[in-house]
Amino acid sequence: MRSRDKSLLEAFFKPSSVAVIGASRKPGKVGHEVTANILKSGFSGRLFPINPQASKVLGLRCYPSILNVPEDVDLGVIAVPANTVPEVTEQCGEKGVGALIIISAGFREIGPDGMTLEAQVVDVCRKHRMRLLGPNCLGLIDVYTPLNASFAKGMPLRGNIAFISQSGALATSILSWSVGEGVGFSHVVSLGNRADVDEIDFMEAIVDDPKTKVILVYIESVGDGGKFRKLAPLITRKKPVLIVKAGITEAGARAVSSHTGSIAGSNVAYETAFKQAGFIHVSSVEELFYLAKAFSTQPIPEGPNVAIVTNAGGPSILATDSCEKYGVKLASFSTELVQRLRERLPPAAGYYNPVDLLGDAPAERYRFALRKLLGFKDVHSVIVILTPQAMTEPMKTAQYIAELQKEYPLKPILTAFLGGGDVREGVKTLHEAGIPNYIFPERAAYTLGQMMAYSRFLETPLPHPAERLPVDEGSVREIIDVARKEGRINLIGVEAMKILKAYGIPVVPSRIARTPDEAAQFADSMGYPVVVKVYSPQILHKTDIGGVRLGLSSSQEVREAFEAVISNAGRFMPQAMVFGAEVYRMAPIGKEMIIGVHRDPQFGPLIVFGLGGIYVNILKDVSFRFAPLTPKEALDMVSETQAYTLLRGVRGEASSDVESILDTLQKVSQLVTDFKEIVEMDINPLFVYERGKGCLAIDVKITVV
Amino acid sequence: MRSRDKSLLEAFFKPSSVAVIGASRKPGKVGHEVTANILKSGFSGRLFPINPQASKVLGLRCYPSILNVPEDVDLGVIAVPANTVPEVTEQCGEKGVGALIIISAGFREIGPDGMTLEAQVVDVCRKHRMRLLGPNCLGLIDVYTPLNASFAKGMPLRGNIAFISQSGALATSILSWSVGEGVGFSHVVSLGNRADVDEIDFMEAIVDDPKTKVILVYIESVGDGGKFRKLAPLITRKKPVLIVKAGITEAGARAVSSHTGSIAGSNVAYETAFKQAGFIHVSSVEELFYLAKAFSTQPIPEGPNVAIVTNAGGPSILATDSCEKYGVKLASFSTELVQRLRERLPPAAGYYNPVDLLGDAPAERYRFALRKLLGFKDVHSVIVILTPQAMTEPMKTAQYIAELQKEYPLKPILTAFLGGGDVREGVKTLHEAGIPNYIFPERAAYTLGQMMAYSRFLETPLPHPAERLPVDEGSVREIIDVARKEGRINLIGVEAMKILKAYGIPVVPSRIARTPDEAAQFADSMGYPVVVKVYSPQILHKTDIGGVRLGLSSSQEVREAFEAVISNAGRFMPQAMVFGAEVYRMAPIGKEMIIGVHRDPQFGPLIVFGLGGIYVNILKDVSFRFAPLTPKEALDMVSETQAYTLLRGVRGEASSDVESILDTLQKVSQLVTDFKEIVEMDINPLFVYERGKGCLAIDVKITVV
Repeated sequence: MRSRDKSLLEAFFKPSSVAVIGASRKPGKVGHEVTANILKSGFSGRLFPINPQASKVLGLRCYPSILNVPEDVDLGVIAVPANTVPEVTEQCGEKGVGALIIISAGFREIGPDGMTLEAQVVDVCRKHRMRLLGPNCLGLIDVYTPLNASFAKGMPLRGNIAFISQSGALATSILSWSVGEGVGFSHVVSLGNRADVDEIDFMEAIVDDPKTKVILVYIESVGDGGKFRKLAPLITRKKPVLIVKAGITEAGARAVSSHTGSIAGSNVAYETAFKQAGFIHVSSVEELFYLAKAFSTQPIPEGPNVAIVTNAGGPSILATDSCEKYGVKLASFSTELVQRLRERLPPAAGYYNPVDLLGDAPAERYRFALRKLLGFKDVHSVIVILTPQAMTEPMKTAQYIAELQKEYPLKPILTAFLGGGDVREGVKTLHEAGIPNYIFPERAAYTLGQMMAYSRFLETPLPHPAERLPVDEGSVREIIDVARKEGRINLIGVEAMKILKAYGIPVVPSRIARTPDEAAQFADSMGYPVVVKVYSPQILHKTDIGGVRLGLSSSQEVREAFEAVISNAGRFMPQAMVFGAEVYRMAPIGKEMIIGVHRDPQFGPLIVFGLGGIYVNILKDVSFRFAPLTPKEALDMVSETQAYTLLRGVRGEASSDVESILDTLQKVSQLVTDFKEIVEMDINPLFVYERGKGCLAIDVKITVV
Repeated sequence: MRSRDKSLLEAFFKPSSVAVIGASRKPGKVGHEVTANILKSGFSGRLFPINPQASKVLGLRCYPSILNVPEDVDLGVIAVPANTVPEVTEQCGEKGVGALIIISAGFREIGPDGMTLEAQVVDVCRKHRMRLLGPNCLGLIDVYTPLNASFAKGMPLRGNIAFISQSGALATSILSWSVGEGVGFSHVVSLGNRADVDEIDFMEAIVDDPKTKVILVYIESVGDGGKFRKLAPLITRKKPVLIVKAGITEAGARAVSSHTGSIAGSNVAYETAFKQAGFIHVSSVEELFYLAKAFSTQPIPEGPNVAIVTNAGGPSILATDSCEKYGVKLASFSTELVQRLRERLPPAAGYYNPVDLLGDAPAERYRFALRKLLGFKDVHSVIVILTPQAMTEPMKTAQYIAELQKEYPLKPILTAFLGGGDVREGVKTLHEAGIPNYIFPERAAYTLGQMMAYSRFLETPLPHPAERLPVDEGSVREIIDVARKEGRINLIGVEAMKILKAYGIPVVPSRIARTPDEAAQFADSMGYPVVVKVYSPQILHKTDIGGVRLGLSSSQEVREAFEAVISNAGRFMPQAMVFGAEVYRMAPIGKEMIIGVHRDPQFGPLIVFGLGGIYVNILKDVSFRFAPLTPKEALDMVSETQAYTLLRGVRGEASSDVESILDTLQKVSQLVTDFKEIVEMDINPLFVYERGKGCLAIDVKITVV
């Protein structure tokens, strides 16, 4: 098989032959270190140093150019000055190399010149169908091949963790730290500038590898939001992905005029994308690793219940508190189980969860209780707490736990052997048996909570997309085209309302009056009370400038209101063009909600739902999902908010028409998926009425590009 | 000085002579271990083993009873079976012992019999003015005396941390763990049953000790809520106190009928008490110690700004994110400072915060940049990040940092040397110099955030109590007495309103009508629109049963409403006694707030403020403080809520009368401080009007005992 037809996993991690372009005889130079690392890592394939100035590097025959190598080369590693990279890349292409790692720096990260150079290199790679890691990266490591094609010192321990990092220095630090901590890896990848392959490509490449149980990712941005949205959810169904996203997202150049835009702060887009993808989003590198310790060794629990076993009160209270905090349920014991525990535990022991074996518990007592608990069907996982006391046998207890894990391979066991020297040997035994020990019980509980969340995620059926609803796309197209032709980005009220109507969203009917008399005449024909609103494409927040009058109940009041809103507009926004005023029948008051859209430059249209009206910016009781929404996602959005309690009816009130909200969310989702021109949208308020009585868009703002 | 006149610190931690009652020759027995620990700890005073069955223990002359000891005994340590404890306690008293540690278990923790025994022991101690630690505890350690009067193995390292723990097993584990981590202590105390001295007594005893820089506390409950409230704020002004509270508070026997009661969940009382005391409340034992690492070695920063110095991008982004998350401000650099940095840093370096020294930074570059930064007045603290790269000099960099710390002793330096073996020696050097290193940069930022919060706390002036307002206590006393005489715990509306009026809180005027005609007559005299509410002491949530009619605008409507609310009450709550209906003029709509009180059994009246109306239970936008409130606390309460934004006026609205809220909070605080009988109270809604127009209590519920 030609190397360029191989899978990404094969091409990058399992090459038969590697060439290092820029291999050097001088220790300390990157081209030397990489060559040395490949040799030291025990790579069993062929290795060809390339350097026109040397005949031998590290005892290996050196070639002036890759084109002189007499055999096929699968993987090329480039460590030459940036300006010569295009040339050697071309040579790699001619040679038929399948995958390339460019370690050299001096590309996109240094500015426009580097960016041009990088584009040039990418073109060469595309031409030859070579996949490219980097440039400006540390390289990569496959612990099982084995192959250390990086300039990171030493080989990490063997393990089940794949680590993909956008920061090379972070990867180096983690590798250095990991040896002392006994943390092992299957793969390590430093992404660099991601000119070609990115984090999603590597996740895809690695996820089916049987040596990997969990994928850890550190990124500062995603390489490609669209690819991420499409592929990430498929990856997380196969293996858990733990991710840290560093850095605050740039707010973006476009000024944010909508509520939705201002609520959807810089990190909301990433949080939402990660959540929808099923990623386990953690907030620090530390968490990444203490979660990985369990995810890489223990089974995913098959249910929500934990049993805690302890020889001391305080630490078990801490564990119990943390279980509650992180959504881990303490198992309820059956009478029979309690009866069995009583048979051999001392009378003063605690027989209910947490099971307190008392301070003098020897290893045998732990074994007895643990076997009973692991054998009980409603216990899905166990936390074992051990504090060093006079009669404690940490080592023997650890051995028993390791045995029990083999007897019950489907139930995760996490331990918290507390203390230092007194428990050191026991902890070593646990780690050798693949049982994660935490020096503080709170961490064990947090970790189990995350494993359970992943377990629940795996249990949810694969979402099916929403059915397409019949809509009138033509009308929307027409309105948007007119606005664009006229150079307007903010649609006027009637236009926005027409767009909603075209997508079947109920709107309050309105007419535009040019004179006070016309306004009064419209009001008479609609029936009272009515609302009068100034009509100007430039005035977005009409209430703020006195441009809205509510509750008008006679033609005289309507005339006065017309004059007033026009005069206020002229006073407060003299530069705005005012075309008259909108008149509409006041709708009966409903629960005020907001449905909005903010188009994220990376991930697409972000939909917001929550409590509307003036509360929206203050209380921020909102939830987010990217469109297109599945029916389940729409329901999740609504039920995640505090407002859901309000909608279901509190204190004797009738419940609201949640169905109509779900329907509106679907329609909005379809609208902004169909029309990429819509970049911001606020339906605020959306009045929601009693169940069966629907909802009504009272005000809507739409911004297009 | 007679030992019983000594301070608690002297008596327990610095005795001249110690007797161990129950000293034993058998290794493994508590009475043996304690004696051995005192000897091994290097205690320089006199030690007297007491045991009628032995003539010598561990080479020391043993006495049959403490009364046979020929010299004065300052501290007694009791390790005999529980049933003989009262007798030996009495002997200690007769001997003139000043302080007693009862290690023996078998007291309150085993049930009613133990409780009686414990009370008996306490009586003996009181009689002889002996202070008592325990029973059922591990004992205590003073690392500097030195004295290990506990049965915990070995002596901890010397350090500046005092650790007070309600869990003996946790203390043992921590001590075992601390040696390997290089964490040192000044004092360790295991509280046990707290029959006499409790955590506050020990904090008071230790806080002035110059060897202690920070106090760490683990408790599952407070010993005495009143003492806590009074003394804790004085302790935290002198030294930082870091606290973990484990265990969920018991909900208490009294059924919670008010909104305030149901919002004030089980942990709110502790959180609020800790906040008002200035405690640093952390959520895990782990945090306790990684915060202590910095608090025990570094100065408290004198301002909010940090400078970050790094040799790698990724970790500094993580640190920056965490700084933002934890309220640490990245210092803005002056042009002059940037100019100075440019003088010696490479052109590609980052000159703005974080300062990026680049991957090839040697120690000298760190020294140069750090000296410039520490010398800049607007940098109050520094985080130094180091990742192991080819040119990195961890050891030398650490030495330079240690030197710079001496040059700038008022500016805290925290480091994040990342990695394992590569940085180990450097980290050792840092720790020896008292510079806390964190293996993950996020932790350093979090720790600095907590130090800055403490710094801000120290800067706030000592709160002065609110001035007492002139009120009509007599009326309140009368109303409460009547209710109690009649066996009612829920006051009726008019009573509750009268109580507010007596304390100067504006209430909506109302009258009680017995018949439909009377209601109509009252309404006519008040002016329309009016509200009619069923009047029954048993019906608390009148809206829920259709017992309220709003917006009535004619006498006919009032008559109908009267009939309706009475009939609804009869239908939905047939058991309730209905006396008629309240009629009151509808108040103009204001912003709906809640002010409530829930009397906590431990800490007293907990006041809540927040968004009222139907939103209160759903949005939980509320803040809490215990009464009596200082004016500053009242202001903090209001400004902590999201609703504060609403009150200041959003989107062109006029701002609300915040002054009137503060005034009402003060009056409520005074009311519930004056009348301990008031256990629950809800003013909901409290309508707040535009600035200068005050506020108005629309509905109020008061429960008394």
